[in-house]
Amino acid sequence: MDWLDSIKWDSDGLVPVIAQEAGTGDVLMFAWMNREALALTAERGQAVYFSRSRQRLWHKGEESGHFQQVHEMRLDCDADVVLLKVTQLGHEPGIACHTGRHSCFYSRLEGDAAGRRWTPVEPVLQDPASIYKK
Amino acid sequence: MDWLDSIKWDSDGLVPVIAQEAGTGDVLMFAWMNREALALTAERGQAVYFSRSRQRLWHKGEESGHFQQVHEMRLDCDADVVLLKVTQLGHEPGIACHTGRHSCFYSRLEGDAAGRRWTPVEPVLQDPASIYKK
Repeated sequence: MDWLDSIKWDSDGLVPVIAQEAGTGDVLMFAWMNREALALTAERGQAVYFSRSRQRLWHKGEESGHFQQVHEMRLDCDADVVLLKVTQLGHEPGIACHTGRHSCFYSRLEGDAAGRRWTPVEPVLQDPASIYKK
Repeated sequence: MDWLDSIKWDSDGLVPVIAQEAGTGDVLMFAWMNREALALTAERGQAVYFSRSRQRLWHKGEESGHFQQVHEMRLDCDADVVLLKVTQLGHEPGIACHTGRHSCFYSRLEGDAAGRRWTPVEPVLQDPASIYKK
């Protein structure tokens, strides 16, 4: 069976994908791939996602230059989630988030039962205006 | 605004959740939460998911004893994915996968353009038959 046929694609033909930084173990982002995106990712060794908002392939870094080099691809026990081990290129430390931060998971839940809130706790490494020049 | 209202719940009222081991950085599993599951997770400090197959709350470890202690909860830039930093309890090293493996992401894509396949590369740490005694 083709390795792409092993995937349990959802009703939209997509699979969720987690990108984890190979060196640090940091979870950088979460996105989606369709069959073509997953095939291209394996072929090129760079992450190609499917943008649900734009309904088209999205070669991560195509606008920012912040490409993701893929070292390893993993599939979970239910064959419905993919994990990429990547190096986030284009800046040191890597910038995976469109806000100019290292990781998209920059908000932490703070507080206790009396009151909780999501609080940004990671710095902006580069002004998004200078990343997305168009 | 309530911290639960900040989440962009999908059309089924769910949000995808990544569980990452705090000590090692290993991505252990991927699951879903509804509003009640997320509230309970924060309240108890243990992961409570929503099982889509069983359509009910699923306190991780309720059958296996392999509970997940939650140290930190993160939200991504689009407010539609949650990341948990956990300690996987009940076995050393932790067993997060129903197959008795450490992580659900135990299959690696091997091969090249001539032929690729998903190959299990992580050991079974405990026989699932002895984990799920019922």
